[in-house]
Amino acid sequence: MPGKEEFVVTPYEVKGRIDYERLREQFGTQPVTPELLAKLHHIAGGELPPALARGIYYSHRDLPALLDGFAHGNPFFLYSGRGPSGPLHTSHLLQFQLCQWFQKRLGVPMYIQITDDEKFWSSKTGIAREETVHWGLENLTDILALGFDPKRTHTFFDSRSIAAMYPLAVRIARKVPYSTVKAVFGFTPSTNIGLVFYTALQTVPAFWPSWAEGRPVPCLIPCGIDQDPHFRITRDMAESFGYPKPALLHSQMVPGLLGESVMSTTGDRADNALFLDDPPEAVERKVRNAFTGGRATVEEQRRLGATPEICSVWALWRTQFAESDAKFAEVTAGCRSGTLLCGECKSQLLERVGKFYAAHRVARAKAKEWAESTIVTRAPRDL
Amino acid sequence: MPGKEEFVVTPYEVKGRIDYERLREQFGTQPVTPELLAKLHHIAGGELPPALARGIYYSHRDLPALLDGFAHGNPFFLYSGRGPSGPLHTSHLLQFQLCQWFQKRLGVPMYIQITDDEKFWSSKTGIAREETVHWGLENLTDILALGFDPKRTHTFFDSRSIAAMYPLAVRIARKVPYSTVKAVFGFTPSTNIGLVFYTALQTVPAFWPSWAEGRPVPCLIPCGIDQDPHFRITRDMAESFGYPKPALLHSQMVPGLLGESVMSTTGDRADNALFLDDPPEAVERKVRNAFTGGRATVEEQRRLGATPEICSVWALWRTQFAESDAKFAEVTAGCRSGTLLCGECKSQLLERVGKFYAAHRVARAKAKEWAESTIVTRAPRDL
Repeated sequence: MPGKEEFVVTPYEVKGRIDYERLREQFGTQPVTPELLAKLHHIAGGELPPALARGIYYSHRDLPALLDGFAHGNPFFLYSGRGPSGPLHTSHLLQFQLCQWFQKRLGVPMYIQITDDEKFWSSKTGIAREETVHWGLENLTDILALGFDPKRTHTFFDSRSIAAMYPLAVRIARKVPYSTVKAVFGFTPSTNIGLVFYTALQTVPAFWPSWAEGRPVPCLIPCGIDQDPHFRITRDMAESFGYPKPALLHSQMVPGLLGESVMSTTGDRADNALFLDDPPEAVERKVRNAFTGGRATVEEQRRLGATPEICSVWALWRTQFAESDAKFAEVTAGCRSGTLLCGECKSQLLERVGKFYAAHRVARAKAKEWAESTIVTRAPRDL
Repeated sequence: MPGKEEFVVTPYEVKGRIDYERLREQFGTQPVTPELLAKLHHIAGGELPPALARGIYYSHRDLPALLDGFAHGNPFFLYSGRGPSGPLHTSHLLQFQLCQWFQKRLGVPMYIQITDDEKFWSSKTGIAREETVHWGLENLTDILALGFDPKRTHTFFDSRSIAAMYPLAVRIARKVPYSTVKAVFGFTPSTNIGLVFYTALQTVPAFWPSWAEGRPVPCLIPCGIDQDPHFRITRDMAESFGYPKPALLHSQMVPGLLGESVMSTTGDRADNALFLDDPPEAVERKVRNAFTGGRATVEEQRRLGATPEICSVWALWRTQFAESDAKFAEVTAGCRSGTLLCGECKSQLLERVGKFYAAHRVARAKAKEWAESTIVTRAPRDL
């Protein structure tokens, strides 16, 4: 077990209280600076995505060059994915909300990967194939319902898109020695050969438009910082194909409602997250029971204020539920000053969450009608 | 380098003078006994395939049970494959000729796998994908031209059949740890992840009919004994799927024309084998230059006889070109007694080879018309 100051972050494990700045230095990525935010603000016509404005996306690789290219008429595309093993919870939407923002403001294409094969291979609990496929389509529908444009959004649903992906995956796999995936993912002799192969398929969407169009097309991958290692392999080989290294934009992890660093729901921690299929009573119960940064008594809190930085409810406001930066500033100030007590704060949040769930239900029913049509089944070429 | 008495046989390497009996004991397989041959002779209505009658197929796993099952109304299917990297030479046809014999006599289905992906992954010389795909179709056409029944013959052309194969491959890969392929194939940290994954795809055809029909369908795989390790993995996991372990029938390797144990053509050893696309002059030259078991002088050979066991020309008679067992016995006796000299023996063989090439050209042109129609592109089910 890591000590109080220790933490472990890999694509398959997040443990301990994460020091994000130290993690960024360990990974060797660049900080998101005010200058970079100003550049994006300018390109997007005077707007910033909330999760960037609030520092949740705090690290990147090669983002300025990608934005400069866009400003000079060389559009990029977005790529993000999901390993389907159950219903989504709200924090799973973080990177897709950012992608949807980019697509809406900049009109760029979106590629979504649903890794139903990888989730089967990586599952420690022995999830069934039927489940990963079922949840793949359910999760995809939830993602598309965020407001993606059906005409500009393409899905690699691994087991259903394999014929399209395989010609490129075969070429990619040739360039990745076992030693690389062993070092990057910490694979052991008991790791199954599906998971060993998997990184080849995960690289396909990042190269797909360049392969299809026969010219280098820049790629932006928003992801949790824990997923950065996956894409180091992709970046390392890109140039050998004549493709650009994908740019990355890394978010911090959304803390769990029970006060852990990550909204993980492994084991019996279903109350650690808000699932998109939770009924209103469950949402209410989970938020009411959520870990906060409040004081022991109301009197003490009014006098000393509370601590938003350790509060899972404040994290929800910050990452996804404060509809405006003004609202977010108001909640934060009220919390810190002691004027906004935890019960009232939770009530306000529940109102926002309820509105989101209601709107999502409607959008989801519409997205269900066209979700399948986004699935890529044909390769642009044979080789 | 192995010493005089040493040899190495793995799916990716054959070195030294092979002691086949010792190899069989090392691998732990069963000998092909007279009783087993009698059983097959009976089932096939009083015939034996030449390569079995002449001891070239000398080892097996679980063949008697498969034949007994057939005799009691439970038909099996055949599976063999080819890694396409160039034109076939005659020894590549050995297992397919046996399969064709089984299909013709017993009416059983044949599954051929063309491993254009694996050949790309395993190539040490950096073969291009274009080449493995090109040769895949060329090789397939040569194989089908041996007389396979278009209605009962199915091809898994890996990169073109992947959509059909993948659902089953995903399940197979989950059960194979890296340690297993490392031990069986001698993989190292520099082995690429495609090759690591590959054994999952190689297992698919062996399970396919059982998967498609939802009941255990027995499988027979004729192969060079060097390929046995591939199928140990397949056999080890079969029962966990409820499928029968595939039976194996192992051949010795066909010696090269230059006197090596295997008709390999790696590097500049093109004269070590008869390629199916060799012009008649090349065939003539290669056979005339072939290593024989003859004596230093004609006088000595007439007096002492020659040694068929070390002769590459005798090996061709034995494996594929003696049209009858009587002819094979005649050649062998003439060689050993000194009445048939090497030059005359080569002339007779060249006549047989010429007839084979002429007939093959005609059959090949016909097979070209329907070769593509054998390629499997659809899975019987999604999962």
